[in-house]
Amino acid sequence: MKVLFESEIPFRNDILLSLRKNSLDYISSLLETAKEKGEIRNDIDIAKASFVVDAIIDRFLQSQTVLHLDAGLGLFKCREEDIKAWIEGLVDIIRFGIGRG
Amino acid sequence: MKVLFESEIPFRNDILLSLRKNSLDYISSLLETAKEKGEIRNDIDIAKASFVVDAIIDRFLQSQTVLHLDAGLGLFKCREEDIKAWIEGLVDIIRFGIGRG
Repeated sequence: MKVLFESEIPFRNDILLSLRKNSLDYISSLLETAKEKGEIRNDIDIAKASFVVDAIIDRFLQSQTVLHLDAGLGLFKCREEDIKAWIEGLVDIIRFGIGRG
Repeated sequence: MKVLFESEIPFRNDILLSLRKNSLDYISSLLETAKEKGEIRNDIDIAKASFVVDAIIDRFLQSQTVLHLDAGLGLFKCREEDIKAWIEGLVDIIRFGIGRG
């Protein structure tokens, strides 16, 4: 988070790019396997689905430590049971979004 | 973007919080209306759905100017026709994710 929000860190762009790329690569490899198994819709583009999953996970994790990203949702430093309910809700939306009906 | 990535800007947190809150409030008011009209599933929690839509839009817009968020997806400074294809794909995932079948 320090690297993300401070512009003076050396190699900041390289570090952030490498983190993002690893995250996207990992998610897209999971989605490729899911597609082969027929768990997600055939017409789903893996790059776009990975983008969506990564954007949601990234924002969700950041919201727990960055107040302005929470913006009233109740995620900032929230209790474990609330986190669980949020994860269930988000997984549900992703599952309907890319899953096979 | 300057406010987001530079930590020395005065009132930085207040500005970012207000932007995020306005965005989330606007999206959730649209989703409330959609729910009343029966366009989205009854079991969808508006806060979680707004979070997902806002996270996707925010990352999508940022990826076009911040190279490390693109991370190889081809969004950074991309052509207008590519942007259109991306928007269609993302809207599709959101529509399946929260829409009524």
